[in-house]
Amino acid sequence: MYRTHNNGALRAEHINETVTLAGWVQKSRDKGFMIWVDLRDRYGITQLIFDEERTPKEVMDLAKTLGREFVIQVTGKVIERESKNAKMATGDVELLVEKLEVLNQAKTPPFTIEDTTDGGEDLRMKYRYLDIRRNPVKEKLIFRHKVSIAVRNYLSEQGFIEVETPYLIKSTPEGARDFVVPSRMNEGQFYALPQSPQTFKQLLMVGGMDKYFQIVKCFRDEDLRADRQPEFTQIDCEMAFVEQEDILNIFEGLTKHLLKEVVGFEIENFPRMTYDEAMAKYGNDKPDIRFGMEFGELNAVAQHKDFKVFNSAELVVGIAVPGGAGYTRKEIDKLIDWVKRPQVGALGMVYVKCNEDGSFKSSVDKFYDQEDLAKWAEATGAKPGDLICVLSGESFKTRTQLSALRMELGNQMGLRKSDEFAPLWVVDFPLLEWDEETERYHAMHHPFTSPKPGQLELLDTNPGAVKANAYDLVLNGNEIGGGSIRIHDKETQSKMFDYLGFTKEEAQAQFGFLMDAFQYGAPPHGGLAFGLDRLVAILGGQETIRDFIAFPKNNAGRDVMIDAPAKIDEAQLKELNLKVTL
Amino acid sequence: MYRTHNNGALRAEHINETVTLAGWVQKSRDKGFMIWVDLRDRYGITQLIFDEERTPKEVMDLAKTLGREFVIQVTGKVIERESKNAKMATGDVELLVEKLEVLNQAKTPPFTIEDTTDGGEDLRMKYRYLDIRRNPVKEKLIFRHKVSIAVRNYLSEQGFIEVETPYLIKSTPEGARDFVVPSRMNEGQFYALPQSPQTFKQLLMVGGMDKYFQIVKCFRDEDLRADRQPEFTQIDCEMAFVEQEDILNIFEGLTKHLLKEVVGFEIENFPRMTYDEAMAKYGNDKPDIRFGMEFGELNAVAQHKDFKVFNSAELVVGIAVPGGAGYTRKEIDKLIDWVKRPQVGALGMVYVKCNEDGSFKSSVDKFYDQEDLAKWAEATGAKPGDLICVLSGESFKTRTQLSALRMELGNQMGLRKSDEFAPLWVVDFPLLEWDEETERYHAMHHPFTSPKPGQLELLDTNPGAVKANAYDLVLNGNEIGGGSIRIHDKETQSKMFDYLGFTKEEAQAQFGFLMDAFQYGAPPHGGLAFGLDRLVAILGGQETIRDFIAFPKNNAGRDVMIDAPAKIDEAQLKELNLKVTL
Repeated sequence: MYRTHNNGALRAEHINETVTLAGWVQKSRDKGFMIWVDLRDRYGITQLIFDEERTPKEVMDLAKTLGREFVIQVTGKVIERESKNAKMATGDVELLVEKLEVLNQAKTPPFTIEDTTDGGEDLRMKYRYLDIRRNPVKEKLIFRHKVSIAVRNYLSEQGFIEVETPYLIKSTPEGARDFVVPSRMNEGQFYALPQSPQTFKQLLMVGGMDKYFQIVKCFRDEDLRADRQPEFTQIDCEMAFVEQEDILNIFEGLTKHLLKEVVGFEIENFPRMTYDEAMAKYGNDKPDIRFGMEFGELNAVAQHKDFKVFNSAELVVGIAVPGGAGYTRKEIDKLIDWVKRPQVGALGMVYVKCNEDGSFKSSVDKFYDQEDLAKWAEATGAKPGDLICVLSGESFKTRTQLSALRMELGNQMGLRKSDEFAPLWVVDFPLLEWDEETERYHAMHHPFTSPKPGQLELLDTNPGAVKANAYDLVLNGNEIGGGSIRIHDKETQSKMFDYLGFTKEEAQAQFGFLMDAFQYGAPPHGGLAFGLDRLVAILGGQETIRDFIAFPKNNAGRDVMIDAPAKIDEAQLKELNLKVTL
Repeated sequence: MYRTHNNGALRAEHINETVTLAGWVQKSRDKGFMIWVDLRDRYGITQLIFDEERTPKEVMDLAKTLGREFVIQVTGKVIERESKNAKMATGDVELLVEKLEVLNQAKTPPFTIEDTTDGGEDLRMKYRYLDIRRNPVKEKLIFRHKVSIAVRNYLSEQGFIEVETPYLIKSTPEGARDFVVPSRMNEGQFYALPQSPQTFKQLLMVGGMDKYFQIVKCFRDEDLRADRQPEFTQIDCEMAFVEQEDILNIFEGLTKHLLKEVVGFEIENFPRMTYDEAMAKYGNDKPDIRFGMEFGELNAVAQHKDFKVFNSAELVVGIAVPGGAGYTRKEIDKLIDWVKRPQVGALGMVYVKCNEDGSFKSSVDKFYDQEDLAKWAEATGAKPGDLICVLSGESFKTRTQLSALRMELGNQMGLRKSDEFAPLWVVDFPLLEWDEETERYHAMHHPFTSPKPGQLELLDTNPGAVKANAYDLVLNGNEIGGGSIRIHDKETQSKMFDYLGFTKEEAQAQFGFLMDAFQYGAPPHGGLAFGLDRLVAILGGQETIRDFIAFPKNNAGRDVMIDAPAKIDEAQLKELNLKVTL
C-alpha cells in the first residue's frame, strides 16, 4: 500500500490523522528553515510542509534535494493550514511530513507541467506521457471516457448489443484507401483494416441482432488534412425493422442524454432540415444554427438593372450582419479581402449599409435605388443598423463562399459560443455526387444507401436529383454523425453497383457475401455512425480533436513518441513473401 | 414504424389489442383451412394464426406461399390461445392476422435455424449471419455484451479510466510475431498491430493516469492452435502506486462482481497459491480446483526398495481417485493406455487399489509391502475404496502427465461442473523460463516484469530461481488473466534487456521511448490483462471461445464468410512500394 489517500482527498476533517501520500513534486519552495512542496497526482494537489523544528533532520535534508516531477512517498500528520487556499479542494490543510521516500527521481522535464505550458506541439507529442500529466490534457482524456461510458450505457438500456466485428477484413477499392496487412499463412494475400464495420453491421441485421452498436477503431490511409487521423473512433450503430424516423428519434435521444449527462446542457429543440434547405439557408450541409444570418436569395430583386456582375451570375445571395452598418470603410475592406483570399475564392463583395434612419448606402448605389435596396433588406432580413454582404456567381461556389463568410463573422462576433449547443438533423441527402476528377457519379454516403422510395427510376434520367434516406447529425457547425436506410434486397444492391461502375464480377468478388446474405431473409435496416473523436471535442467545447486522443499521430501519420512506423527486419519481410521496391 | 411490439412481448393482457409485428418465419403449419406461423425475432417467438373464416382470402393465399426465413410484417388482433404453451413467454396468446406483407423473401437456408442445427462448422461459418439467428449463438453474443458492460461499469466505478491506445504502432521482435501494416506515407516503413497495449499503458502510468483500463483488440500472427484467434480481445488494466496485493484485491473484486452479476454465482473463497505450490499440488500452473485429487509426492516412501523404475526417477508422484478401487482391470488398462498416448507421453502407470477392508492391492506388490502402500495412501490422501495412480520420471514432465490424467479423470467423473466456479490466484511466477530451442532464458511474462525485491542479483548465479511479482488469475483450470508489477526504473529495465540478449542499440531502438520515460518520474506500477474471449466462454459454462466471437477466423486465419485475406490490386502494392516475391 503506497498511500492511504490520494492528493485530492484531504479535508479539515482529516486534521490530526496520520496519512501516507504518494505523487509527483509539482513545485517546491525552500525558505531554509521551512520547505513547502506541492504534491500532485491525478486527483489533485496536497501541500506538504517540512519544518526545521518539527521534521527530522535527515528528512529535511532529503527534502532539499527534491526536484520537479520527482516521485515521492510521504507520511505525516494532517494539520490546519495557516493561510487557507479556497481555490484548492485540499486548501484547508497541509501535511507535516515525518517520513519521506524518493520512489523515483526525474530529469528536468523538457517543458513545464502546468496548465499552460512552454512546450510546442512537437515536443509535447514526443513526450506525450509528460503532456498527459498536464491538467488540460488529462481532463480531456477523462472526459472522453465519460462520454464513451455514457454512450454505452444509454444504448445498452435501449436494447442495443455491442458486438465486436473483426479488424482483419478484406480490401475493397471503393471509398478511401485501405491500410492492408500481409498474411503470412495465406501466401501473397492481404487483410485490410476496416474503414468502418459497415458490411458486418448489416450482416448482423440479417442475423437478427436487431439493434447493434460498437465503439470501434476505423482506419483510412488518406493524405492527412489538418485534424484528421489515420485511425479514428466511431460509435457505430445499426437497427433492423426501422424507418428513418425511428433512427432519428433514438439518436436524438442519445444526443440529448449526452448533452445533459456529460455537459449539463438541456435542450428541447432538435430541428430537422432537408439538405436542399440547409444549402439554401446556410450554403452548407452542416450549418451552425447557434446564430442566424440566414441567406437571402436576391436574383429576383438584383438582376433587373444594368449591373452586369449580378446579371451574369447564376446566384446572387446575401446575409445581414447584425449591427454591421457601423463598420468603418477599413473594416469592410478587411471583409472584402477576406472573401477574396484563395481559400474562399470570391471575386468581390457588394455591401449595403442599412442606416438607422431607414436609408441605405451601398457599394452599388450607381445601379440600385433605395427601393431596390429595401427589397434586399427584406430578403435578407436586415434591420436598420445592419450590414448586408452580397456575393454572386455559380450557385454552389457562391453559397460555399458566403457560408465561409457567415462562419467567419460568427467567430469574429463571438456568436459561436462553446458552452452553447445547437444540434440539427440534415436529411434527404442526394444519393450521388458528381466527381469532377473521374467525371462520374459516386455514392455520396456509400453504395449501400437506399434511394428514397420510387426514386430508383430517376437514376437513368436525372441521377443528381435522386434523394436518399440519408441523414447527418450536425452539432455547432460540425458533422458529428451520419447514416442512412440501407438497401436490403439483392436486386437493388446489384443495380446500384452497376450504376457505380462495378462489373458484375467485381461486385460479386467484393460484396458477393452481402448480396448472398440479402437472399436469405434480410430485414429492412438502417443505422448511423458518430465520429467519437469529434463528438467528444465538441461536447468539450473545442473543435480540434488531437488533445482528446491519448496518443495521436502527426500529419505524416507518424507517432513521434515511439517513432513509428519504422523499418522491419528482412526476416519478417521474407516470411511475408514481400520485397520493398524502393 | 415497422412494428408496435417485438415477438417476445405479447401477453394475456394484450388480448383484443390490434398490433403489428415483424420478423422471420420460423415455421409454418398449413392445415388448409388454418395456417399457423411461428414468427421469430431477437426477442422471442409469437404464434400467428390465419383462419379461412376470419382472415381475408388474399391474406390467406399469401400466407400459403411463406417459406422458412421469409421476412414478414403482420397486423392483427391478439387473441387467447386455445392450447396454451407454458414454455413460451408469449404462449398464452396468438395473433389473428388481418394484414400480411412480405418484406423480403428467403432462399431455403443451407442449414436449419434451430437450437440444434444440421449445419457443420464450415457451413455455419460461411453463412455466419444465418448461424447468428440461432438462439445458442445469439445468446452467447448477448452474454458477451453483458460481461463487457459489467466490466466497464465496475472498473469505472473503481476510478479506472478507459483510454484508447493506438492500433498502428511499431514492430518489436520480442514475443510472438507481429502483424505489420505497410505505410504509404512513410516509404519502406511499417506499422505493427499491437500484441497488447503494454508499453502504452505503462506510459499512461508515467503520465499520471493512475488507473487505466481498456477493452481492446490485440493481434498475434501465430500458427493457430485450436481455439486461438489471430485477433483477440483483452481487458487490459494498469495501476500506479500499487503493490501486488492491491492489484489482486481489485481484480478479485471484479471477478466476484462478474460471477454474481452475470452468472448469479456468489463466491466467498478466493484462494492464492504460489506457482511452486500449484506445480507441486496439481502439476499445473492453472489448476482446476473445483475438485481435489491433489498430488502426493512419493519419493521418500517409494525409492527404498528394488523397483528400478522408481529408484531412477527424479520424481515419483501419485493421486488418489475417489471410489477408484472398484475399477475393473479393463478400466484401469484404459487409464494406462490413456497416459501412454503420445499427447500425454507417460511410459507406464503404477496403481494401488485401496480396499474397503484397509488392505492394498497394487501392480507393484512384488516390490512393496502393505506398510509401504499405506504410506503411499497417506501421502496421496487415499481412503479405503480409492485408487492411487502413480507416475514417475523427470519432475516437470511427470507432473504435467499426472496433471493431464487428473483433468481427464475430473472430466470422466463429472467433477468439472460448468455451473460451478472456482477462481484462484497463482502468484510468484518465475521471472524467466528456459527455451529449449534457442537454448536461453526468455521472459516468462514479458521483459517489463519486475523481479521480486532483492532477487535481481540471482540473475547471474541462478536465473531459473528468480521469482517475479507476477500472477495469473485461473478460473476452472483455465488461465483467464495474468499480470505483474513492472520495472519502473531505467537501470533495472536496461539490465533486463541485457539479460534477455538485446544489444544496447536494439534496446534503445525498440524501447528507448520507455526507458526515456522512466527517467522523468515514473511511479511504481503494475497491472494485468484478462482474455475476454476466454473469460466470457468460461463464465458462459463453455471452454471453446469461437461461438462467443461474432465473426471468428478459422485455423488458417481465414474469414470464410467474406473470403479474407485476398489478393490486392497491383496498384495498391505499387503505392506501398511492395512486391510479392512468390
